[in-house]
Amino acid sequence: METVNLGLYFTSEFVGTALLALFGCGVVANVALAKTKGNAGGFAMVTWGWGFAVFIGVLASAYSGGILNPAVALGLLISGGITGTMFAIAVVAEVLGAIVGAILCWVTYRKHFDEEPDAGAKLGVFATGPAIRSYGANLTTEIIGTFTLVFIVFAFADYGDIQVGVPGGLGPLTALPVAFLVVGIGMSLGGPTGYAINPARDLGPRIAHAILPIKGKGASDWGYAWVPVVGPLVGGALAAFAAPVLLGLV
Amino acid sequence: METVNLGLYFTSEFVGTALLALFGCGVVANVALAKTKGNAGGFAMVTWGWGFAVFIGVLASAYSGGILNPAVALGLLISGGITGTMFAIAVVAEVLGAIVGAILCWVTYRKHFDEEPDAGAKLGVFATGPAIRSYGANLTTEIIGTFTLVFIVFAFADYGDIQVGVPGGLGPLTALPVAFLVVGIGMSLGGPTGYAINPARDLGPRIAHAILPIKGKGASDWGYAWVPVVGPLVGGALAAFAAPVLLGLV
Amino acid sequence: METVNLGLYFTSEFVGTALLALFGCGVVANVALAKTKGNAGGFAMVTWGWGFAVFIGVLASAYSGGILNPAVALGLLISGGITGTMFAIAVVAEVLGAIVGAILCWVTYRKHFDEEPDAGAKLGVFATGPAIRSYGANLTTEIIGTFTLVFIVFAFADYGDIQVGVPGGLGPLTALPVAFLVVGIGMSLGGPTGYAINPARDLGPRIAHAILPIKGKGASDWGYAWVPVVGPLVGGALAAFAAPVLLGLV
Amino acid sequence: METVNLGLYFTSEFVGTALLALFGCGVVANVALAKTKGNAGGFAMVTWGWGFAVFIGVLASAYSGGILNPAVALGLLISGGITGTMFAIAVVAEVLGAIVGAILCWVTYRKHFDEEPDAGAKLGVFATGPAIRSYGANLTTEIIGTFTLVFIVFAFADYGDIQVGVPGGLGPLTALPVAFLVVGIGMSLGGPTGYAINPARDLGPRIAHAILPIKGKGASDWGYAWVPVVGPLVGGALAAFAAPVLLGLV
Repeated sequence: METVNLGLYFTSEFVGTALLALFGCGVVANVALAKTKGNAGGFAMVTWGWGFAVFIGVLASAYSGGILNPAVALGLLISGGITGTMFAIAVVAEVLGAIVGAILCWVTYRKHFDEEPDAGAKLGVFATGPAIRSYGANLTTEIIGTFTLVFIVFAFADYGDIQVGVPGGLGPLTALPVAFLVVGIGMSLGGPTGYAINPARDLGPRIAHAILPIKGKGASDWGYAWVPVVGPLVGGALAAFAAPVLLGLV
Repeated sequence: METVNLGLYFTSEFVGTALLALFGCGVVANVALAKTKGNAGGFAMVTWGWGFAVFIGVLASAYSGGILNPAVALGLLISGGITGTMFAIAVVAEVLGAIVGAILCWVTYRKHFDEEPDAGAKLGVFATGPAIRSYGANLTTEIIGTFTLVFIVFAFADYGDIQVGVPGGLGPLTALPVAFLVVGIGMSLGGPTGYAINPARDLGPRIAHAILPIKGKGASDWGYAWVPVVGPLVGGALAAFAAPVLLGLV
Repeated sequence: METVNLGLYFTSEFVGTALLALFGCGVVANVALAKTKGNAGGFAMVTWGWGFAVFIGVLASAYSGGILNPAVALGLLISGGITGTMFAIAVVAEVLGAIVGAILCWVTYRKHFDEEPDAGAKLGVFATGPAIRSYGANLTTEIIGTFTLVFIVFAFADYGDIQVGVPGGLGPLTALPVAFLVVGIGMSLGGPTGYAINPARDLGPRIAHAILPIKGKGASDWGYAWVPVVGPLVGGALAAFAAPVLLGLV
Repeated sequence: METVNLGLYFTSEFVGTALLALFGCGVVANVALAKTKGNAGGFAMVTWGWGFAVFIGVLASAYSGGILNPAVALGLLISGGITGTMFAIAVVAEVLGAIVGAILCWVTYRKHFDEEPDAGAKLGVFATGPAIRSYGANLTTEIIGTFTLVFIVFAFADYGDIQVGVPGGLGPLTALPVAFLVVGIGMSLGGPTGYAINPARDLGPRIAHAILPIKGKGASDWGYAWVPVVGPLVGGALAAFAAPVLLGLV
C-alpha cells in the first residue's frame, strides 16, 4: 500500500462519487420533477437507477477500487483493507464528488427544477428524507440497510472475485453484482427512509441543495441530516466486526 | 464431507436465510404497507425483490453453499449431495434464520406496520397466502413451482458452474442465474399462491408474525401454513428423482 | 454428430420446451387472469417473464443445446449445425413439450381460469394473437422478429461463447444473453403480434387450449394459427442465409 | 490496423446500427402508438428496451467492435483507437444503418402508425425531442449524457474486458455492461431530452421519418435536429480528453 498515489486515489474516489451522485440524483429528478419524460415512473425505477448509478460510479474509479461511500470506507479501515490516510482522503473526495455530481444533476434538469412547484420534490432529488419522521426508527433502518451493504461487500471479497477498495478490484462484469445488491437494498429496505446507506450520497447533495440558486427551493432539512450520516457509519462498522464471525471462509 | 464444521455450517445457513427473509419480507413490506416509498409498487417489483433476496442470502452463506431452503436441502439429501446430519442442521438453521430475518424486517418497517390499518397486509409481509383459497389447487401450484426451482438447481450443477450445497459453490456472478431463476418463478408461477417454494421462507416469518407484538395484527392463518411446507417438500423431492432421468448429461 | 443419443436429444428438447411453455404461458396467466397476484402487471412484466422462460428452458436442455424453437432449428439445419433427423426430432419434441407445458400452466392457474370471465384472456394465455388483425402485416412482423432472434443466435455462435444446438453449448451465465435478447425482442418488436417468434411456442399451447376442458373457453382462433408458424420459419431461414454475409467473422 | 477490411467494417457498423435503430425505435413505438400490446408501458420500459437495442446492435457488429455511434467514434478517433478513414466509414454506415433500421420499425408497426392519431407520437418513435424546449439547456443535457457514455466506454477499455471499436472486443456477456450503462443513462439523464446521446440514432430515423409515407405524419422538427448531433459529438470529444486525466490506470 506504500505505493498508492494519493492524488490519483483522491481523483478516483472523487470522479466515481460524482458520477454516482449525478446518476443517483438524476433518476430521482426524472421520476419526481415536473414535465420530465420519466415523470411518475415509480420507486422501482428509482431503485434500478440507483443500482446503475453505483455500477457506473464504481467503473469510473478503478484506481481506488470504487469505494464511493464513507460507510464502506470505514468498514475497510476497521478490517485493515485501507489505511487511515486513505480513509480520510476517500471520505473528503466522496463528499466533494457528491456535491459536484449533484450540481451536475441540477444542470442536467435545470428547466425541470424551474417548472416544479413542490419544494419538497426538489429537495428529494438531492437528499433522502423519512417517509414517517422518527429519528430512532429512521436511524435503525439506515443501520440495518448499510449493515447488509457492507456485509455483502465483505462476502464478495471472501469469494475473491470482487475486491472493493483494491485497485482494479472490480471490472465491468463484477460490478454487476454490486449494482444488483444496491437495487435489492433499495427495493427491500428503502421504503422507510429512501436508503441513504452512504453518508456522502446524502450529505454532499444536501450541501449542493443548500448552496445552489435553485428556483423556489425550500429548506435543506438539516435537522434530519445526521441520520443518513450516523446510521450508515454505525451499520458499516457493525458489518466490519460481524463479517469475520458470521461469514464462513470459503 | 467428514471435514464439515457443523457450527460454521449452521451459521452459514442461519445468516443466509436471515438475510433472505429480511429482504424478501422487506420488499413486500415496501409494496404493501402504508406510507412507504415503494407503496403500490406492484407484483413485478416483489418478484425482483425476492430474486435479489435470494442473491444476497446465497452470497452470505458461502460455507454451506447457500441452500437456504428445506426443499432444496431435501433434494440434495435425496441425490446424495448432503448427509442426513447436514440436512437436519440446515433445516433448523433455515427456519430459525427466517424467523430472525422476519423480525429484522419488522424492525426496519416498524412505523409502517403501526400506520397500516389492514391486518391482512401485515400478515402478507410475513407469510404467503392463496389468491383463491383451495388447498388442493394451492398445494399443486406450490409443488409445480418448487419442482422447477429444484430441477433447475440440479441443471446448474450439471453444468458444473453453480453447485448449491457445496462450499463456495456459488460466487457473486454465478449467484445471478439463481436470482433470475427465482424472479422467473415468481413472475410466471407466483400468481395463485405468492410462491413460497420454500418451507422455511413461509414458516419462519409466520412464527415471527405470531410472536411479535405487531400493532393491530390479525391471525397468522395457521390453517394454510401446511401448504407452503408440504408443497415445496413434495416438489423438491420429485425434482430430485426426476432430474437424473430428464436432464441429459452434458 | 454420429454419436448423438436421439432419445436423450428428444427428451432434452421436450423438457426444455415444456418448461419454456409453462413459464411463458404462466406469466401471461399471472398478468391476464382474474384475481392473480400479478394481475394487470403490464406488458413489460410479460416480456421479462418470457425472457426468464427461455432462460429456464435452455438450462433444462443441455444435451440438445437448448434449441426449443423450430425456427432456430431450421436456421441450424440450413447452416449445417444439425442434421435433418435431429431437426425432425427437435420439432416434434418441441411441439409436444409446448403442449405439456401449457397443460401444466393450466393446472397451475386452474382456479383463475375458472374465475376469469373473458374467453379472449384465456386464449391469450396459450396462443399469440394480433393487436390489429391483418395477416400480411402480422406475418411481416413475425418474420422481422424471428429474423433478429436467429440472426443474433448466429452472432452468439460467432463469438464462440454461446452455441445453441451444441451439447452444453449454453451454461447458466451464457444463457443470460439469450434471455435478455428475448426480453428485448418482446419489448421492441412484440407490440403488434405478441411475438410468437417460435412456431412450437404458439402451436403447442393452442393445441392444449383446444383439447383442455377449460371452463368457459372460446374458440382457439385457428384462422390465425398459420401466421406464428410460417412467419418464424421464414424469418429463421432468412437469418440463416443472411448471417454469413452480414456478420463479420471475428 | 492496416489489415482492416473496410467493406466488412462498413457492413458491420451498418448492420449493428440498423438493429439498434429497429429495436430502439421499436420500443418507443410499442409504448407510444395506438393499440399496441405495450401501450402506455412507461419510460422505464423504454430505457430497458434501448439498453437491449444497444446490446443486440453491438453483438451484430463484432467485426467493427460495435461502435454504432458517431460520438463514440469521435472519442475513439481522438484517442487513437481508430483512423480517420475508419471514422468516416463508421459515421456514414451508422447514419445509413439507422435510416434502414427506422424504416424496418415502421414496417413492423405499420398498422399502428396508421391507427395513431397523434403526429407527435409518430415523430417520437423516430427522433428525440425535448420535454421543455430550450436549446441551450437541451444541448447541455445531451453533452452531459454523452460525456458519461463515452467516459465509461473508456473506463471499460481500461479494464481490458470490453474494447469498443476493436474486432471482437465485445462478447455476449461483456455486452451486458454496455447495455446496463445505456439503461442507466436513460433512467437518470434521459428525462429532459429523451437521451439521443448518439447523432446517428437521432438523425437517421429523423431522415426516415421525413422520407417515409407515414399516414398522418407531421413535420420532422428539423429545428431541433442539430441538438442531438452537436451535443453528443461535443460530449464524446470532451470524454476522450478527460478520460486519460480522470481515470486512474489500473
